[in-house]
Amino acid sequence: MKRIPLFAIAAALVASLGGTMIVSAGGADDESAPIFGVKLPAGYRDWRLISVAHEEGKLNDLRAILGNDVAIKASREGKLPYPDGTIIARLAWSYDALEESEKAFGRPQSFVAGRPKNGVQFMVKDSTKYAATSGWGFAQFDDGKPASEAVHKTCFACHQIVQARDFVFNRYAP
Amino acid sequence: MKRIPLFAIAAALVASLGGTMIVSAGGADDESAPIFGVKLPAGYRDWRLISVAHEEGKLNDLRAILGNDVAIKASREGKLPYPDGTIIARLAWSYDALEESEKAFGRPQSFVAGRPKNGVQFMVKDSTKYAATSGWGFAQFDDGKPASEAVHKTCFACHQIVQARDFVFNRYAP
Repeated sequence: MKRIPLFAIAAALVASLGGTMIVSAGGADDESAPIFGVKLPAGYRDWRLISVAHEEGKLNDLRAILGNDVAIKASREGKLPYPDGTIIARLAWSYDALEESEKAFGRPQSFVAGRPKNGVQFMVKDSTKYAATSGWGFAQFDDGKPASEAVHKTCFACHQIVQARDFVFNRYAP
Repeated sequence: MKRIPLFAIAAALVASLGGTMIVSAGGADDESAPIFGVKLPAGYRDWRLISVAHEEGKLNDLRAILGNDVAIKASREGKLPYPDGTIIARLAWSYDALEESEKAFGRPQSFVAGRPKNGVQFMVKDSTKYAATSGWGFAQFDDGKPASEAVHKTCFACHQIVQARDFVFNRYAP
């Protein structure tokens, strides 16, 4: 693996995690994400939960990681690498203090998901199609439209941080 | 509605959200939660996602709100009150800084779900059975075992904070 300077990883992380909100004309057919050609998977909001997370700083969001059936099985078993057919979805929302709870406590206590934020992202495993990026295709959609090519160029570089976990940041939350 | 002092609500909130970890002998048959007699619903970890949240302070966790089919439909439609048959699950995990991300950024940036924490909680809607508590039954399980009666006494009092939303704190995250 080529060594990547930490500042470059950090910058890529901010961009790939959704810091950039530029909406491009999309991929070849205007619906596919650039570079990897991933389309928005139908019904992903009904997928089961892998885990949850909170990003601080500029991203400042609450997120959920959902998986299709292949992803759920693989993440529950904890076996790496993920098999072909795995699709992992990352949804995110604004990080909002719950008003009623703040009132009762006299200070912010509960933070809840607000409006959708930082796009919806996907990792798709296809070891043949995406051989050049260790078997993973990446996509970000902002308001249902693919994000720019520039955004998609940052994905794989940043996910190298977790190369040891087959490039997947999240782990199954039991 | 009887007025409840804010400090009492805050104390009840801490307890009912899972601050208390006392494991009791459970309900009548040792498997049902006390007071409301709710059993751990089979397959709840496969339910679909309603929303995500983070509790600060003593609770210090990341949580996911899942719902059975009735709950998902109702929360997506946003119509109140929730119909009989609704079951809402609240899972929670420790709030852990993601090591790899902290290393790349030089400070904590990403927080992820760690070990299960603060029990698993349920709200069950049955307007006949739970008429005395506005149609809701409550349950908390710690490591699969019902929590104490004392814990269950705090549930309804605290949920009165959100009486206007049929006693449900969370809202559907689109």
